[in-house]
Amino acid sequence: MHPVKSVIYNRIPSSDPALVARAAKFGVADLHEALGAVAGRMCLMSSKMRPIGPGRVCGPAVTAFNYPGDNLMIHAALNLAQAGEVLVFTNGGTSQGALWGDVACGFAKKKGVAGAVVHGAVRDTDAIREMDFPVWATHISVEHPEKRGPGAVNVPVVMDGVLVEPGDIIVGDADGVLVIPRKLLQHAVEGAEKRAQAEVGFRTRIAAGELPLDILGLRAVIENLGIEQRDATWEDDR
Amino acid sequence: MHPVKSVIYNRIPSSDPALVARAAKFGVADLHEALGAVAGRMCLMSSKMRPIGPGRVCGPAVTAFNYPGDNLMIHAALNLAQAGEVLVFTNGGTSQGALWGDVACGFAKKKGVAGAVVHGAVRDTDAIREMDFPVWATHISVEHPEKRGPGAVNVPVVMDGVLVEPGDIIVGDADGVLVIPRKLLQHAVEGAEKRAQAEVGFRTRIAAGELPLDILGLRAVIENLGIEQRDATWEDDR
Amino acid sequence: MHPVKSVIYNRIPSSDPALVARAAKFGVADLHEALGAVAGRMCLMSSKMRPIGPGRVCGPAVTAFNYPGDNLMIHAALNLAQAGEVLVFTNGGTSQGALWGDVACGFAKKKGVAGAVVHGAVRDTDAIREMDFPVWATHISVEHPEKRGPGAVNVPVVMDGVLVEPGDIIVGDADGVLVIPRKLLQHAVEGAEKRAQAEVGFRTRIAAGELPLDILGLRAVIENLGIEQRDATWEDDR
Amino acid sequence: MHPVKSVIYNRIPSSDPALVARAAKFGVADLHEALGAVAGRMCLMSSKMRPIGPGRVCGPAVTAFNYPGDNLMIHAALNLAQAGEVLVFTNGGTSQGALWGDVACGFAKKKGVAGAVVHGAVRDTDAIREMDFPVWATHISVEHPEKRGPGAVNVPVVMDGVLVEPGDIIVGDADGVLVIPRKLLQHAVEGAEKRAQAEVGFRTRIAAGELPLDILGLRAVIENLGIEQRDATWEDDR
Amino acid sequence: MHPVKSVIYNRIPSSDPALVARAAKFGVADLHEALGAVAGRMCLMSSKMRPIGPGRVCGPAVTAFNYPGDNLMIHAALNLAQAGEVLVFTNGGTSQGALWGDVACGFAKKKGVAGAVVHGAVRDTDAIREMDFPVWATHISVEHPEKRGPGAVNVPVVMDGVLVEPGDIIVGDADGVLVIPRKLLQHAVEGAEKRAQAEVGFRTRIAAGELPLDILGLRAVIENLGIEQRDATWEDDR
Amino acid sequence: MHPVKSVIYNRIPSSDPALVARAAKFGVADLHEALGAVAGRMCLMSSKMRPIGPGRVCGPAVTAFNYPGDNLMIHAALNLAQAGEVLVFTNGGTSQGALWGDVACGFAKKKGVAGAVVHGAVRDTDAIREMDFPVWATHISVEHPEKRGPGAVNVPVVMDGVLVEPGDIIVGDADGVLVIPRKLLQHAVEGAEKRAQAEVGFRTRIAAGELPLDILGLRAVIENLGIEQRDATWEDDR
Repeated sequence: MHPVKSVIYNRIPSSDPALVARAAKFGVADLHEALGAVAGRMCLMSSKMRPIGPGRVCGPAVTAFNYPGDNLMIHAALNLAQAGEVLVFTNGGTSQGALWGDVACGFAKKKGVAGAVVHGAVRDTDAIREMDFPVWATHISVEHPEKRGPGAVNVPVVMDGVLVEPGDIIVGDADGVLVIPRKLLQHAVEGAEKRAQAEVGFRTRIAAGELPLDILGLRAVIENLGIEQRDATWEDDR
Repeated sequence: MHPVKSVIYNRIPSSDPALVARAAKFGVADLHEALGAVAGRMCLMSSKMRPIGPGRVCGPAVTAFNYPGDNLMIHAALNLAQAGEVLVFTNGGTSQGALWGDVACGFAKKKGVAGAVVHGAVRDTDAIREMDFPVWATHISVEHPEKRGPGAVNVPVVMDGVLVEPGDIIVGDADGVLVIPRKLLQHAVEGAEKRAQAEVGFRTRIAAGELPLDILGLRAVIENLGIEQRDATWEDDR
Repeated sequence: MHPVKSVIYNRIPSSDPALVARAAKFGVADLHEALGAVAGRMCLMSSKMRPIGPGRVCGPAVTAFNYPGDNLMIHAALNLAQAGEVLVFTNGGTSQGALWGDVACGFAKKKGVAGAVVHGAVRDTDAIREMDFPVWATHISVEHPEKRGPGAVNVPVVMDGVLVEPGDIIVGDADGVLVIPRKLLQHAVEGAEKRAQAEVGFRTRIAAGELPLDILGLRAVIENLGIEQRDATWEDDR
Repeated sequence: MHPVKSVIYNRIPSSDPALVARAAKFGVADLHEALGAVAGRMCLMSSKMRPIGPGRVCGPAVTAFNYPGDNLMIHAALNLAQAGEVLVFTNGGTSQGALWGDVACGFAKKKGVAGAVVHGAVRDTDAIREMDFPVWATHISVEHPEKRGPGAVNVPVVMDGVLVEPGDIIVGDADGVLVIPRKLLQHAVEGAEKRAQAEVGFRTRIAAGELPLDILGLRAVIENLGIEQRDATWEDDR
Repeated sequence: MHPVKSVIYNRIPSSDPALVARAAKFGVADLHEALGAVAGRMCLMSSKMRPIGPGRVCGPAVTAFNYPGDNLMIHAALNLAQAGEVLVFTNGGTSQGALWGDVACGFAKKKGVAGAVVHGAVRDTDAIREMDFPVWATHISVEHPEKRGPGAVNVPVVMDGVLVEPGDIIVGDADGVLVIPRKLLQHAVEGAEKRAQAEVGFRTRIAAGELPLDILGLRAVIENLGIEQRDATWEDDR
Repeated sequence: MHPVKSVIYNRIPSSDPALVARAAKFGVADLHEALGAVAGRMCLMSSKMRPIGPGRVCGPAVTAFNYPGDNLMIHAALNLAQAGEVLVFTNGGTSQGALWGDVACGFAKKKGVAGAVVHGAVRDTDAIREMDFPVWATHISVEHPEKRGPGAVNVPVVMDGVLVEPGDIIVGDADGVLVIPRKLLQHAVEGAEKRAQAEVGFRTRIAAGELPLDILGLRAVIENLGIEQRDATWEDDR
C-alpha cells in the first residue's frame, strides 16, 4: 500500500541477522530458484539492472522514492541507513537526474552501508569502481538533479518491475538483483541450502561425464511430448 | 508480499460499493491528481498501457499472475470474477502468449465483469471492439499460450511498474490506467470531488479569458526563479 | 539461404489457389493456432507490425530486401507482382527511408495486388486509408529514400523476426501478420478447418454458460500443479 | 546555441505570412522532399511523434523547455503565443509529467493557436479529439506535473532528435511532424511547388498504366548495379 | 522452412573442416564484408548480441528453439553437440527463463564445444568468464526456466533477426556475431582472403600517411555528388 | 540552421586554447553542473552514448552527417580534422552501417585527433581499446557502410538528442558525453573552477562526518515540504 502523503519512516522492519548471514552465502541464481517458479519470478529485477563494478551484496532495504529530476530523498535515506543495509532508490526509472554519485557513495561506505541499487541513473562510475562499493543501476548519467522533493523514504516502492518493501533482503551479484520479502527469507535460505547439498551430487555426476539430460530425467519429458528424434538432418526432410 | 507458493485465493478484499460508484464519476486524470504527487505517481500505469477500444472502467481488481507463454490462470480468475470487477492480468509484460481474446471476453461480459487490463498481449481486437467490452493492454498479438501454469490468482502483482493488490480499484479511460489502493479510495474520491468543485471556478475564469498563468499564480513562481523575461527574440542575443 | 549476390528473381514458387482461398476464410489467430505451438510461434510477426487501416489479406509473398535509406527494390517488386499477391518489404526494420506510399499503393491496387507488409516505414497514411488497400508496417515516416540499391527481389528475407520465403502465404488482419510456409499451407488450412468445427461446439457450450475452465479440463491441470485454492483473501494470510 | 541561464523571450523571429500560407498547402512528405536528402532528414521528427487526432498544422514555432516532471514553462509560452503559431514543448521526451491537456488546449484554441507538438506526454486525449485542435505527442499520460520550473521559453530546443528554433515553421499531418528552418522556408516552398507540378505529369503517367520503374528510369539503375534478373524462382537456385 | 511439428534432428549438415579452419582466421568484420553488401547484412546479428567475456568462435551451428520461459531443448542440443560446434539457442529473444548457465557451460567445454550464442538470457556470468568459454547473449538474467518444452533441435531458427540453419558457420568476436550460410562459406572465405591481401597494401599506404579519402578514391565521389567544399566555417554562411 | 544543400565546410569556429585546457581539467559531471540546470540538461548526451574503452577527451568538434548505411562523410571529416579536435559523427543513430573502425582510428591517432563520438555504430572494438584512442558510441556493429553520400561536414548536427555546432567543446569520460557551446565555454569553465573550490570544503566536511543533508541544508527543505518524519516503520501504519 502506498502512503497517502509524502512521509519519511525512520525505521525499517528487521530480520534475523543470522538468517541474513546465511542468505549472504548464496548468489542471486540460488536464492531465486529457492523462492520457486512463481514467487522467484515476481522478486527478480530485470536485465536492465546492471552492476557498475564487481561485487556482491546481501542486506535489508532502505528505500527512497524520488520525484523525476530530483534526488532530495536519497539524502534523507542516507541519513537513516545503518551498517549492512542496502540503499534502494527509484525515480520511476528515468536517467533524468542522477540519483547517486561518488560523494554520497563515500559517505555510505564510511557508515558501513552494504551497497546501492538504483532504478535510475548513477554518475562518477570510475570513482565508484575505485571505491569498491557495490552499485547496481539501470542508467549511467550525470544529469543534474534538483533537491526539492517531494518523495518518500522507507515506504514500499516498485523498482524495475519488482515490489520492494523496506526491510526486504536485497541480493545482488554479476547476474542482477533479487528482492527477498522478509516473510519468505527463511523459506529462501532453507531452500538454497537444500539445493546446495543436492548440487554437490549433481556436479559430481556432471564431472563424471553424465548428461544433465539424464540426471534431470529429461529424456522422458521429451518422449512424453511426442517429439520425434530423427537420425537425419533437417535438409533430408526439406 | 508475494506468496511462498502458487495459490488461488477465491475472494478479494471488498470496498464500499457507494465509494466505488462515486469514484466511477471521475476519469484517470482526476483521481490521479487527487492521490497527490507521490502516491499518484506510484499508482499510474505507464503510457505503454493503451485502450483497445473506447470505453471506461472503474471497479475492484481480480488479479492473475501467469507463467511466460501461458494463460492458465486467467481461466481460474474468470471463474472467480464477479459482476463489476476488473480483470487484471500479467505475465511479466511479454507478447509471448496472448492472455486475453474474444471467447473469454464474451464470457466475462455475460457475467457482468467490468473490463480487463492486460500486462501482456490480447488478440481478437476487432471482435473485442464490436463487443463493447473495455480492454487495455501493453501488446496486441495472437501468439499461442499454453495452459499448464504455474501461476497465482488474487495475489498482489506488479503490472507495468505498478503494484496491484486484489480488491484495489482499477480506473481506466482513453488516457490510461490508474490503480487506487483500497485504503486510499476514500481519500482519492473526496479529493476528486473537491477538485471538481474548484475546477468549475477555474473553467469559468478560463472561459472568461483569464490565463492559467494568472489563475494559478505562476507569474510569481517565474519571478522567484529569477527567470528573465526579455522583450526580444533569442536571435537578438545570439 | 541468402543469395551470394544481389539478384532479382522474376517468379515465385506457386501454391494451389484453392488452398489459398480456403486459408483466406480464416484470421491470423486461427491459422497461427493450426500451425501448432512451435511452428506457429516461428511464423508470427511481432506486435510492432501494425495495420495502417482496417482490412485483411491472404496471398503469396513477393519479397524485396532494401538497403537502409533506399527503396529501389520495391519498384522492381511492384513491377513483378501479380494480382492476389502480397508485397513484403524490409530494410532491416528502420524508419530511415519510407518504403511505401500512396503513388506505389495506387499502382499496386490497380494491378490487383492484395496488400503490403512493410518492415520499415510507410508514408501517406491518410491517402492509404482512403484507398482501402490493406497495409501493415512497423513504422510511419515520410523520411526520404534514395533509389540506388543494392538489394534483392524474391529472395528469402527475415521480416520482424520471421523468415519469409517468396511464395509463402501472408495472412494479415487487425491482430497482426502471419507467414505460412508453402509446405505447411495444407496442414494449416486443414487444422484451421478442424478447429473451426470444434469451435462451434465450444462456443455453444460457452453460450450455455459453461466455463472455459470446465470445457478445457483446466480444473484438473490446476489440481495436478498442486495449487492450493483458499476460500480466503490474500490479506487473511498476510 | 543554448542560453546561459533560464530565460523567456517574449517574441519570436517572424516569417513572411504569404510564404507560410503557401507552405500550408503542402503536407509533411512534400515539404520534406523539397528540403532535399540531407536537410530534409535533419528536419523530420521520428516516427514516435504521432497525431492524437486527425488534423493538419503549419505555422511558426513557439518553444518551451520544461524541467522533468514539470510544465511551468508551457503556461508562459501559452501566454505569449499568437494566433496561427504552433506550440512546441519538450521535457526531454519523458512521460513523467503531462505537458498538455484539455484546459490549456481550450485556451489555446480560443486564442487561435494553430496546434501543439509535444515531446513528452499529453492527457485528456478524448477531450482533445472532440475539440478539433491538432496535437502531436510522443507519449499519452496523465502523470502529474509540478509547476516549479526551471525552464526557458522561445529558445532553441531539440525535439525528438530535431533542432527547433523559435519561429521555425512546424508542419504536421497524419504522417508526422517536420520543422522548416526559417531561412529554408522559401527554398522548401518553391521546391514543393515545383514538385507539385512535376507530380501532375507523374500521376498522369501512373494513371495511364506506366510503372514508376520506367518513369523514374530505375531499370537503368538496376542494370548499372549489375543485379542479375533471373527468369526463375529462388528455389531453382537453391 | 519450419517443421510442421516439434522434432529433434540428431545431425547437422556438414562443411569442409579445412574451409572452416580458413574462416577461423578472420574476424566478424572481415567475413561480413566478404559476403557483400546484401548477403552480409542479412547474415549479421544486431548490436544487442553482446559477448559475455573475451574470446572468439568459428564453427558449425547446432540450433535449439525453446518455448518462452523454458530451456528443455538446450539439454537435447547439448547432448548432440560435437567438438568444434557452436550452440545457437533462441526463445524468441526474451529474458524470461535463463537459457544457459555455468553447469551446462562446463559440460559443453568438456565436450570441446566451441561456444554458445543465446537469443535470450544467460546466468552465472562471473563463472562463465572464469571458464574461458565464449558466450554471446542478448540478455543477462537468472530468471527460472521450466523444462517442459515444446521446442525443436537442429531446425532453422531466426536469431536476433537473422536466419540460422543447422550447420551454418557461426563467427563471433568482440564486435558481434555473424552467420555464414553453408553454401556461402567458400565464397566468404575466399573473399576474406583476397581482402586480407588487399588490406596489406592499404595499411601500408595508411602507415605512409596517405588518406583513406585518397586511397579509396572518395574525392571523386564527393565531387560527383556536387557537394561544395567551402573554405569557411558554417557560421560565415549563417 | 541546417544547410540548404550538402556542403563541406573546411574550417570550424575556434575557441581559446587556454580555455579549452582549463576545461580539460574537469569531468563531464563538473562541467555539466557548471552549465546550470537548463543549459546543462540541453547539452548532455543520453545514457545510450557509452565509452568503448577507458579514457577522457576534451576538444573542439569536427562534425559529419552521414546518410543511413553510409560513411563517406567521415572520410572527408578525417581529412580536415586537426590535432586536439574531436570527431563527432551521426547517421541518425542507427547501427546500419559502421561509421568508425580501427583503420580510420589509427589514422586519426597519428594526426593527434583527440577522440571520436559516434551516434551510430563502431567496429573493431578490441583493436580500438588496444590503440588507447578514446571512442564513445551508441552502437557496436560491423555492418557494412557504403561510401556514396550524400552528407555534410562541419555543419550543426543533432547527436543523440543534443545539438552540436562545429567548434563546440566535446567532453567525454566514463559517465558519458557533454557538449559545451562555444559561447558558454568561459561560463562553464569558471563555474567548474568555482565549484571545485567549494567542493574542497564540502569534501572536508563530509570526511569529518557531516551529512550532505546538513551541509546542503536539506533538512529545512524537507520540513518546508511538510513531509512528516515518523519514528516508526511503514508496517506500523498499514
